[in-house]
Amino acid sequence: MKILLVGGTGTIGKRIYWRLQDAHEIITAGSKSGDVQVDMTDPHSIEEMFTKTGKLDAMVVAAGGAPMAPVQELTQEHFYEGIRSKMMGQINLALIGQKHLNPGGSITLTSGILSEDPIALGAVLSTINSAVNGFVIGASGELLRQGIRINVVSPGIVEDSAEAIGSYFPGHNPVPMERVVNGYLKSILGICTGQVIKAY
Amino acid sequence: MKILLVGGTGTIGKRIYWRLQDAHEIITAGSKSGDVQVDMTDPHSIEEMFTKTGKLDAMVVAAGGAPMAPVQELTQEHFYEGIRSKMMGQINLALIGQKHLNPGGSITLTSGILSEDPIALGAVLSTINSAVNGFVIGASGELLRQGIRINVVSPGIVEDSAEAIGSYFPGHNPVPMERVVNGYLKSILGICTGQVIKAY
Ligand SMILES: NC(=O)c1ccc[n+]([C@@H]2O[C@H](COP(=O)([O-])OP(=O)(O)OC[C@H]3O[C@@H](n4cnc5c(N)ncnc54)[C@H](OP(=O)(O)O)[C@@H]3O)[C@@H](O)[C@H]2O)c1
Ligand SMILES: NC(=O)c1ccc[n+]([C@@H]2O[C@H](COP(=O)([O-])OP(=O)(O)OC[C@H]3O[C@@H](n4cnc5c(N)ncnc54)[C@H](OP(=O)(O)O)[C@@H]3O)[C@@H](O)[C@H]2O)c1
Repeated sequence: MKILLVGGTGTIGKRIYWRLQDAHEIITAGSKSGDVQVDMTDPHSIEEMFTKTGKLDAMVVAAGGAPMAPVQELTQEHFYEGIRSKMMGQINLALIGQKHLNPGGSITLTSGILSEDPIALGAVLSTINSAVNGFVIGASGELLRQGIRINVVSPGIVEDSAEAIGSYFPGHNPVPMERVVNGYLKSILGICTGQVIKAY
Repeated sequence: MKILLVGGTGTIGKRIYWRLQDAHEIITAGSKSGDVQVDMTDPHSIEEMFTKTGKLDAMVVAAGGAPMAPVQELTQEHFYEGIRSKMMGQINLALIGQKHLNPGGSITLTSGILSEDPIALGAVLSTINSAVNGFVIGASGELLRQGIRINVVSPGIVEDSAEAIGSYFPGHNPVPMERVVNGYLKSILGICTGQVIKAY
């Protein structure tokens, strides 16, 4: 399979890369790192990236963020930061990517546990993660008519991030990286579509 | 109770109004109709509305929309239309409204069944409804510390809309208006918080 891995140099993305690289042709993408460069917040940059990659069998996104702040201090600017990056960045990659996939191809996005298991300061991420899940649920039926599958992996806090940010997630169980990567493999190599694959 | 009802002149809103008006002081708001005018897509207009309403015991929003289109034709503009209206319109009403509620006050937003039970052409609404649900789940814990509850009612296609738009929802069971209104009453008059109240 020829697989585009946006965020393929990140904490989660590089683990996906390691697991797939032997058996598949992987193109990693990042804003500065990777085989090709893309700014996922900019649809023109996404269009340009696909002219470089050519047709793909799978597109995976493990990138995009959203700010953390107390609900009492939140303004719409906090939300729009997450909307431009993790929400519309991933949705634009999927909308534009659907035209660059081979028949039988798949799209795999990333959300996160905060959509259903919230933490203090995390209201924007709960919102954005839920939006990404909703997009996958909403778009999957029409994408299937085109022969394209789409799923989203929703990781808990991952083991490799626990030291840096675990204190924001009191009582959450860090998820072993193998379990996280398995979520992506189920989507890329399996047969499911329209699924929120919980990696926790 | 003094209750602000944004969208109180709409299909769902007027039913909530009818049910509550005898026992409560209701202020209805709409962009053109209602006791006070507000454009929920504009945070300045929302700020201005609250200077007119004064302190409230409950704020309810049954307003906001998002466009319908095939996934193959969707662009980010379709999403941003729904983001500005049903998603950030409601979130801005909640963020700004939290400062205008009496202790023990509540916020009730509206999403919809498409977050989990999708239809053709409905991918933007699935996304936006899920975002609103995620916001409520994410923000409820910190709002509770301020003594404020927040919930979201997720209606199926409602009986009063079935003739006009039911054909977009094949096999969906139109929800009796009393059942829909009960969802809002549970949030406004009950004790729950952080709940997605399914009215279907
Ligand atoms: N880590 C966790 O515990 C955890 C848990 C749940 C969900 N998640 C989600 O999983 C995703 C990946 O998280 P992570 O911890 O692996 O992130 P990370 O270590 O910060 O890696 C981010 C990756 O995305 C790329 N990237 C950053 N900005 C980009 C842009 N504008 N356009 C394209 N690529 C960009 C980075 O490459 P460059 O540096 O070259 O831009 C890098 O490859 C995020 O959506 C995160 O919210 C993470
Ligand atoms: N109807 C259904 O079957 C159904 C099912 C699930 C979910 N929902 C959701 O429930 C909500 C209400 O639906 P509905 O069918 O009752 O809608 P509706 O009949 O179209 O009523 C809309 C209400 O919102 C007000 N409004 C419109 N634009 C506004 C703006 N920019 N700022 C403030 N108020 C505005 C309108 O007043 P003005 O005309 O004065 O602006 C009216 O009171 C929507 O979010 C809808 O997506 C509806």
